Amino acid sequence: MLDETNGQCPVARALEVLGDRWALMILRDAFDGLRRFSEFQKNLGLAKNILASRLKLLVESGLLALQPASDGSAYKEYVLTEKGRSVFPLVIALRQWGEQFLFEAGETRSALLDRATGETLETLQVRARDGRALGPDECQRTVVQHG
Amino acid sequence: MLDETNGQCPVARALEVLGDRWALMILRDAFDGLRRFSEFQKNLGLAKNILASRLKLLVESGLLALQPASDGSAYKEYVLTEKGRSVFPLVIALRQWGEQFLFEAGETRSALLDRATGETLETLQVRARDGRALGPDECQRTVVQHG
Repeated sequence: MLDETNGQCPVARALEVLGDRWALMILRDAFDGLRRFSEFQKNLGLAKNILASRLKLLVESGLLALQPASDGSAYKEYVLTEKGRSVFPLVIALRQWGEQFLFEAGETRSALLDRATGETLETLQVRARDGRALGPDECQRTVVQHG
Repeated sequence: MLDETNGQCPVARALEVLGDRWALMILRDAFDGLRRFSEFQKNLGLAKNILASRLKLLVESGLLALQPASDGSAYKEYVLTEKGRSVFPLVIALRQWGEQFLFEAGETRSALLDRATGETLETLQVRARDGRALGPDECQRTVVQHG
């Protein structure tokens, strides 16, 4: 549970759902097109009970929706909702930070490309409304009523 | 430990360090200017032994550096390294997702403003090199040698 100060912080609230390695690994796989329990299980190598509990939390939190399989079979599929799809910039931020700091030259790694051009993506940058790049020191916190 | 496929994934490697709620809460506080053990402890309300272990991990992983206090006192301070500062877009992605989905109208929440203008920040957007907004379906994964 969050205390009053942290309860007002969008970062702290977001981390109540997303501050879990497996939740974000499942969402990463969903962005890669995985939909079935068995696909997630194979790709993550995760114990079934742990995977089931994480998927349940993601459904309860509204990031994934359970729906009948698209091929008409008896399987159920886990599909990203709008709330789930909106985690995309966060997964890209993790990817780009990992690419920048966690690989040695010559190591094999996955890369994400713009399907239309085959080029790498633009690096995410925090920006002001007028386009200036902003670092943490150029920002200040305040308190507002959510509109 | 990551298997071969996940070991090649920058998202999976990033989550080995950042896939922890408290690590990201500490980094959030560091971006807000907190530097001392007692400041983090007060703000997070976290047991000292847990805070100490998370800070140690962040130092060992090269996101925070321990240095003598800036006021000349005997205290040590935890200061963001370049690797730690580069987590800023990720923290902003968490914040913006939280702002968009986790608050009801009228709730009090913190907001982050551009210090120069007092305006809110631009919403992070995944983009191609030529500026087009990209969703997950416009991206494809491949494997490269890290350069």
